[in-house]
Amino acid sequence: MPSAHTRDVETPALRWLDPPQGPAIALLDQTRLPAEEAVVTCADVPALVGAIRRLVVRGAPMLGVAGAFGVALAAYRGDDVAASAALIEGARPTAVNLGWGARRALAAYQRAFQDPAQGSHRTAARAAVAEARSIAAEDAQASAAMARYGLSLVPEGARILTHCNTGALVSAGEGTAFAVILAAHRAGRLARLWIDETRPLLQGARLTAYEARRAGLPHAVLADSAAASLLAAGEVDIILTGADRIAADGSVANKVGTYGLAVLARHHGVPFVVVAPVSTVDLATPHGSAIQVEHRPPEEVTSLAGVPVAPAGTPGYNPAFDVTPPELITAVVTEQGVAQPVTTGTLRVLSAGSAVTRGPAPSLTWNDEVYEGSRAGRR
Amino acid sequence: MPSAHTRDVETPALRWLDPPQGPAIALLDQTRLPAEEAVVTCADVPALVGAIRRLVVRGAPMLGVAGAFGVALAAYRGDDVAASAALIEGARPTAVNLGWGARRALAAYQRAFQDPAQGSHRTAARAAVAEARSIAAEDAQASAAMARYGLSLVPEGARILTHCNTGALVSAGEGTAFAVILAAHRAGRLARLWIDETRPLLQGARLTAYEARRAGLPHAVLADSAAASLLAAGEVDIILTGADRIAADGSVANKVGTYGLAVLARHHGVPFVVVAPVSTVDLATPHGSAIQVEHRPPEEVTSLAGVPVAPAGTPGYNPAFDVTPPELITAVVTEQGVAQPVTTGTLRVLSAGSAVTRGPAPSLTWNDEVYEGSRAGRR
Repeated sequence: MPSAHTRDVETPALRWLDPPQGPAIALLDQTRLPAEEAVVTCADVPALVGAIRRLVVRGAPMLGVAGAFGVALAAYRGDDVAASAALIEGARPTAVNLGWGARRALAAYQRAFQDPAQGSHRTAARAAVAEARSIAAEDAQASAAMARYGLSLVPEGARILTHCNTGALVSAGEGTAFAVILAAHRAGRLARLWIDETRPLLQGARLTAYEARRAGLPHAVLADSAAASLLAAGEVDIILTGADRIAADGSVANKVGTYGLAVLARHHGVPFVVVAPVSTVDLATPHGSAIQVEHRPPEEVTSLAGVPVAPAGTPGYNPAFDVTPPELITAVVTEQGVAQPVTTGTLRVLSAGSAVTRGPAPSLTWNDEVYEGSRAGRR
Repeated sequence: MPSAHTRDVETPALRWLDPPQGPAIALLDQTRLPAEEAVVTCADVPALVGAIRRLVVRGAPMLGVAGAFGVALAAYRGDDVAASAALIEGARPTAVNLGWGARRALAAYQRAFQDPAQGSHRTAARAAVAEARSIAAEDAQASAAMARYGLSLVPEGARILTHCNTGALVSAGEGTAFAVILAAHRAGRLARLWIDETRPLLQGARLTAYEARRAGLPHAVLADSAAASLLAAGEVDIILTGADRIAADGSVANKVGTYGLAVLARHHGVPFVVVAPVSTVDLATPHGSAIQVEHRPPEEVTSLAGVPVAPAGTPGYNPAFDVTPPELITAVVTEQGVAQPVTTGTLRVLSAGSAVTRGPAPSLTWNDEVYEGSRAGRR
């Protein structure tokens, strides 16, 4: 994986290339990891949209960064910037950060272009790039803050279960849930990381295992359906996941399989914690049932890397996400603090940047509210 | 797949070959389905044990048949029959039918050998084969009875979810849960069959989809972790699975993922029904925690259809089974009737062959006890 700190590199997953190399966006092709570290270079917005749809680049915070750089790319090329932003926003319907990033870069472009002193396409394009870089920088800071807040919820000797991939590949920093896991490891609190393989596209087995190995974490990969017996055996102390969109009522859309884990967590009295930047909170979506869930091609289930795993022509049901209601979520950790309980009120305060829980760490501690709150909810 | 009715064919999955072709056991290699219909011929017990371990032949009732023919094979060859039975029984620790079938054939062998009138190795070997054929014939009859009993629990227009593979490949008849599904289809009650792909070895995607397609059932395959959102969307009316061992307290060991489905079924108020012959009931195992769960090689998880899906050397957690407690199981359907509630008492009566529920169909009907019982258990 390229370093996050070489010249022109914004993140391990995405690099912005200025002219004369660009304008272009270079993406580490996450569909080919861990077998191969290939780069896909997108020279226009349709190429970027295609790459986003194929999941060459993915993950909520990183899609915000990619959306913003996509608008910058359109601006540099002299394309219709507003139309490009709309195209990017439509590339994947569930991840809210994509449109959020695109709209932030569009607004920066429009402000600069309308500036009577210096407005020009060229200065406006520079403003869009600057905004995209800001989003990436903010994301790195947010990741560090989420790690700090999230760490206070992780007990000593924690056996953590996670789903999908939420590390440096989805972030300009160390990610969301995975940033908390790394913080727990550095604090000596991580006894084991259980990684759901995360079918159909195996982001857990392919990407999280890759990152866990690089970081030297004690880890093991399991079939998603084996998580239930791990919970029954008392082998999981906390479940940490990311989020692709959080509705105003606290419902969380995330990688398919998250909802089932949340039901299992409740059944076994294990805390279920979502880690996501406030840009993932979408107050304009009132509740979970209003979240549009992307359905992807059935071939993602019925084959793997071109190898069929079901008879030819077998119909497949392939939602990319599911929606977890707030009553099953112990806490939502953001860079602004921890929402607990997960309600419209707590999310609104965090989104406004005025943390419910402030300071170097949230006031919550493992041994009281979180753990007891979860136990109280046990059936 | 070979027909079940050609000469020497006991089942689609297994054929016994008499001398001079044999003695041997020919197995349809289920690890290579649906891509290829290859046959593995086992000429001695170690070869059979290897094939059982590799899952060339699998599924609770079929393992009973295979275990019995394995003892017959040892007898024909003049091997130590009791030692061979023990070897077979140890091939896979969780499936109780394997040892049950081996012990039945061993007992038949020993009875015949000790017969003062005609006892000889040769007649005893013939007796063991005859017993194995009886087990297969009884299994076919049991399958038909399970289908009849199970059908009464399936509502009109049913959307049925199933896990793993429970059809003609695991049975001398039409299987266990899959036999009920076929009966529902013939009765015009099946609106849709949802098939969990069943990681890690994809018996759902590979085998159940294959059988569903051949039978013309309306079906779709899904990632195991997508079942939760189907349940949340109200798209599942009943869950039907098989079993590999049922302890005296009603705990059911079955393919990993079954327990999680049972928790989800309870959470959503959907009936969760296990279909298995009484030979799967193991009254000698007092409760679920006493069931030995087989752990299989991590490579089954870290690769998919032979393709590596995680970095080389990634540790995997790979239990082949999980255990579902009786309080999450709406009913156990056997060839002797339906155990509901699932208790030591109801299972004991069924195992004794004196059905709790007798006659052409159980007295239970969908609209009263089963459905309401499940609803009453809803959280």
